[in-house]
Amino acid sequence: MATKKYKKTNETSYSLGITLTVELLKQKPHLVERVYFHTEFEKKDVYYEIERLCNDNNITIETGSKIFNIVSNKENCYVIGEFKKYNCDINANEKHIVLVNPSNAGNLGTILRSALGFSVKDVAIIKPAVDIFDPKTIRASMGAIFGIKFKYYDSFQEYYEEYKNRKMYPFMLRGSKSIHNIDFENDCSLIFGNEATGLKDEFLAIGQSVIIPHSHNIDSLNLPIAVSIAIYEATKTNF
Amino acid sequence: MATKKYKKTNETSYSLGITLTVELLKQKPHLVERVYFHTEFEKKDVYYEIERLCNDNNITIETGSKIFNIVSNKENCYVIGEFKKYNCDINANEKHIVLVNPSNAGNLGTILRSALGFSVKDVAIIKPAVDIFDPKTIRASMGAIFGIKFKYYDSFQEYYEEYKNRKMYPFMLRGSKSIHNIDFENDCSLIFGNEATGLKDEFLAIGQSVIIPHSHNIDSLNLPIAVSIAIYEATKTNF
Repeated sequence: MATKKYKKTNETSYSLGITLTVELLKQKPHLVERVYFHTEFEKKDVYYEIERLCNDNNITIETGSKIFNIVSNKENCYVIGEFKKYNCDINANEKHIVLVNPSNAGNLGTILRSALGFSVKDVAIIKPAVDIFDPKTIRASMGAIFGIKFKYYDSFQEYYEEYKNRKMYPFMLRGSKSIHNIDFENDCSLIFGNEATGLKDEFLAIGQSVIIPHSHNIDSLNLPIAVSIAIYEATKTNF
Repeated sequence: MATKKYKKTNETSYSLGITLTVELLKQKPHLVERVYFHTEFEKKDVYYEIERLCNDNNITIETGSKIFNIVSNKENCYVIGEFKKYNCDINANEKHIVLVNPSNAGNLGTILRSALGFSVKDVAIIKPAVDIFDPKTIRASMGAIFGIKFKYYDSFQEYYEEYKNRKMYPFMLRGSKSIHNIDFENDCSLIFGNEATGLKDEFLAIGQSVIIPHSHNIDSLNLPIAVSIAIYEATKTNF
């Protein structure tokens, strides 16, 4: 099978770089199909660590340079892991982050990193949405994606039907309560809109809408920043 | 003078896009040398707003497409503002964000957006550091750069000598006090290290070192996320 540039419809995706690939091998070894070393990769300590992880899990190692030119735009990428994409479900008893129509791969990865950082490991994504297996998402997550459970929903309605008994907090510029004055439950949902458009006004009627108050000198906070501040605040008592 | 790709040594830089250019014209009209409209730019309302701002400030408008191919890598860029780079000083009576050796242009822009968002308008940058006038920084700041005061220092020592009487908070993974337990003064300094390396251990001896506690499932928070959470927390009583 010829190696092709990553596409959403592919059955596999790639971890580009040493750190990501080590994280992949530790978290999801059974999904790894192959590990590629660049011909110019020096056999340092980390080489032997990856080799051992591959041997332990019967994963083929290939040495070459072709795949690096095809799937990686970045210099300094000497190791690539190819893995089968997977589905998971989210936990009904935990906090959820709900991303409505996120469109930027790097932003999604940054959000996953913060989420895992504050131990909110369940992420619902409402379509249309960016592909969580885009190598850019994986890279921006710094490997956090492999520690996160996620589920795509065709509409917010579909998510809402499944979880309507829990407390929902849509974060909006028009939110009616300041984040400073909310005690977040253990199993609540933190809901965020698209980078450019935010959540539609109809979300004002869902649960308790929340605002992160800021000055009028900016239109809005950057999406990963807003999500991370919300997670930080909602998990404060755990840290 | 021929238009050239942006370089750090240029005397001018560029706002790429409509929103940024409007922000530039409103905040720093006296520094704008020229505004470029792409030949394919439709004459909508915003066109007349930009035209009016240019006329009010005697700024030349040029229509063409050449400069767009040279300085903008992005599609959908139909307006460019060219402006003289400038120096400013920071305010001794306000909170400072101190960035030690920041290396990524997009990250710096995102930090400026959060900083202006929470009204921390004074940013010290310790060299070696990314160029604040890189068009990527300007774009990621969403124009916030034009509302921020900043100053470059050759070393942290130089900054420290100037401000040693204020309270300093270096944010570090080894920080000795949790951010949850600090009452930030109005004129304190929030100090952050480089994306990859953080602050060196010697910063443990400066002021009160701070940690943003998170799980062990990630190595560290993304830099703009950490800075934004710190600013959010340090300015909470104002919002």
